[in-house]
Amino acid sequence: MSKGNAVEILLVEDNPNDVELTLRALSQHNLANKVHVVGDGAQALDYLFRTGEYAGRNARETPKLVLLDLKLPKVDGLEVLRRIKSDAALKVLPVVVLTSSREEKDVVESYHLGVNSYIVKPVDFEQFVSSVSEIGLYWLILNQPPRG
Amino acid sequence: MSKGNAVEILLVEDNPNDVELTLRALSQHNLANKVHVVGDGAQALDYLFRTGEYAGRNARETPKLVLLDLKLPKVDGLEVLRRIKSDAALKVLPVVVLTSSREEKDVVESYHLGVNSYIVKPVDFEQFVSSVSEIGLYWLILNQPPRG
Repeated sequence: MSKGNAVEILLVEDNPNDVELTLRALSQHNLANKVHVVGDGAQALDYLFRTGEYAGRNARETPKLVLLDLKLPKVDGLEVLRRIKSDAALKVLPVVVLTSSREEKDVVESYHLGVNSYIVKPVDFEQFVSSVSEIGLYWLILNQPPRG
Repeated sequence: MSKGNAVEILLVEDNPNDVELTLRALSQHNLANKVHVVGDGAQALDYLFRTGEYAGRNARETPKLVLLDLKLPKVDGLEVLRRIKSDAALKVLPVVVLTSSREEKDVVESYHLGVNSYIVKPVDFEQFVSSVSEIGLYWLILNQPPRG
């Protein structure tokens, strides 16, 4: 997915439709080729901690944003979030949860674990694309991340 | 400032010009009357912890966002952030640092303390207004905060 461009967003999403919509939204601002997609929580952890198939990943190429679904195969999103935010180096990485869950326990648990922002996936197709587009602009253009 | 409306943004800013620009930007989306402004870090802590002149504040009226300058009289912004993010109840409250400092030590320290987002104030007047407008839309409309 990264096609030689520096990865700026790690998208952790198992639903192919949501992946497609997310990439479509980000392509509106030419951000889609800066996305690396993983389909489960174990792969997300391998990517972030440079283990398994990502053992050779360049440590300096840290994304500016992790876009994290909650319901994921193998390792769920809250556990991925917990691992990121309890790691001394990775905890500074902005993580936005993008989920269909509106359940208050998921919202509160995410904030307690240190999520940077929590967005409920709009059900409407166009609103989904518009929300992801806003997320991309906010976190890649407006927000100042720590240097990798 | 809140004029009977529920406070949704606590703006912690000592520079009157930046306060005025921020309110002007937020008024574009009818959000300006939901802002409570305090001019130093001690007042911010009194507001959030309901002490001093804010001892009688309704605990249920928690803002959805704290917009926090770093260079502040009395108690500086990083200390305000530290106090919020080390409090069991307040740590879930979204805090966006809005500062003129681009210094990496301020950026990294803010993320280590658990800031939700870090925005450098644009020097250009129109860009300042446009950035604050985006911040308001993102955190009051798109982001899902925990219930107060």
